[in-house]
Amino acid sequence: MAATDSFLDAPEDTREEIMRATYLALCDHGYAGLTIQRIADHFPKSKSLIYHHYDGKDDLLLEFLEFVLDRFEETVSIEGADGPEDHLRAVFDHVFATPLPAERREFGRAMVELRAQAAHDERYRDYFTRHDRFFRDRLAAIVAAGVESGAFADVDPAATATFLHTSIVGSMTTRATGEDAAGTVREGLEAYVRAVLEADA
Amino acid sequence: MAATDSFLDAPEDTREEIMRATYLALCDHGYAGLTIQRIADHFPKSKSLIYHHYDGKDDLLLEFLEFVLDRFEETVSIEGADGPEDHLRAVFDHVFATPLPAERREFGRAMVELRAQAAHDERYRDYFTRHDRFFRDRLAAIVAAGVESGAFADVDPAATATFLHTSIVGSMTTRATGEDAAGTVREGLEAYVRAVLEADA
Repeated sequence: MAATDSFLDAPEDTREEIMRATYLALCDHGYAGLTIQRIADHFPKSKSLIYHHYDGKDDLLLEFLEFVLDRFEETVSIEGADGPEDHLRAVFDHVFATPLPAERREFGRAMVELRAQAAHDERYRDYFTRHDRFFRDRLAAIVAAGVESGAFADVDPAATATFLHTSIVGSMTTRATGEDAAGTVREGLEAYVRAVLEADA
Repeated sequence: MAATDSFLDAPEDTREEIMRATYLALCDHGYAGLTIQRIADHFPKSKSLIYHHYDGKDDLLLEFLEFVLDRFEETVSIEGADGPEDHLRAVFDHVFATPLPAERREFGRAMVELRAQAAHDERYRDYFTRHDRFFRDRLAAIVAAGVESGAFADVDPAATATFLHTSIVGSMTTRATGEDAAGTVREGLEAYVRAVLEADA
């Protein structure tokens, strides 16, 4: 998400105001530091309204994640204007942006923490399974279009997408928890695309 | 780590007994569910001894992570018996083991949770930065040996290792938090090794 997202600039209703406040509080404090009070600090209305709608922090965060997924599904385009090769590279441009703008970096860290909840909480696991599937399906559609057009070799789009997606998750994870190697990972994926996808195409 | 590790089978002193109890409690309850009491449940001596040595859960966990890193450094061999190609594939065999034994799966989930602490805790971030560097350096040494021997093309060992390592982290992360695609990720890395590393070798 970017600062230009409409719910951040001009939330349309109470729900979008709560989503905006949750987003800002997550960027400021991460998952561990998040409290309803800290969300309320970014909310222009009464804190009791948040309690009225949500049964605590995780209930609100799971709703927030659904909201994020809906927006993600709307903003990830299915067809690239300039063909599958350029479309794939446009995805890389976004995912491996270097340096990462501060707000995306903070939100990325919070998302790594939220994903880790999935290790022992089925509700988060269900969410990230669906989120991952959506992203992989979009990547698979790009690869399939490339196979169809002859730009890519006759690879398995779903398996290729899973590999690309896993490398992207790894990059987002190490970027948030260790050293940021996004540029190097992108070069590795570019080498993979040239040598495996575009090899016999 | 495996159940055959000596500190699990036969801890040699109080410290190893605490490390063993921490490992077992982490496998049972994960990071979020971990308490000193739950560690004490696996510790044959008095709980007060744990409090005597450690200032709470994170202090103990950071010590535990150092213990894990020391053992990891001892067990990851520098030289493969059968050359760099087989050495790299032996690393893949271990990392992408399918199906993952239950204990490694539980510990893997806990490690994903511990890594997520690095998003907002410098002590964990420092640890995972060092842990990642160690693993990448070992992978780079394998790649460098392959370039040296002529088994691999003239690639940059450090950059190649970073790419491999990031895919491995991605696989460990999605395996713990979504769908387990380790087999597919391994196939993708095998394709990368064949097409990029072994191409012009």
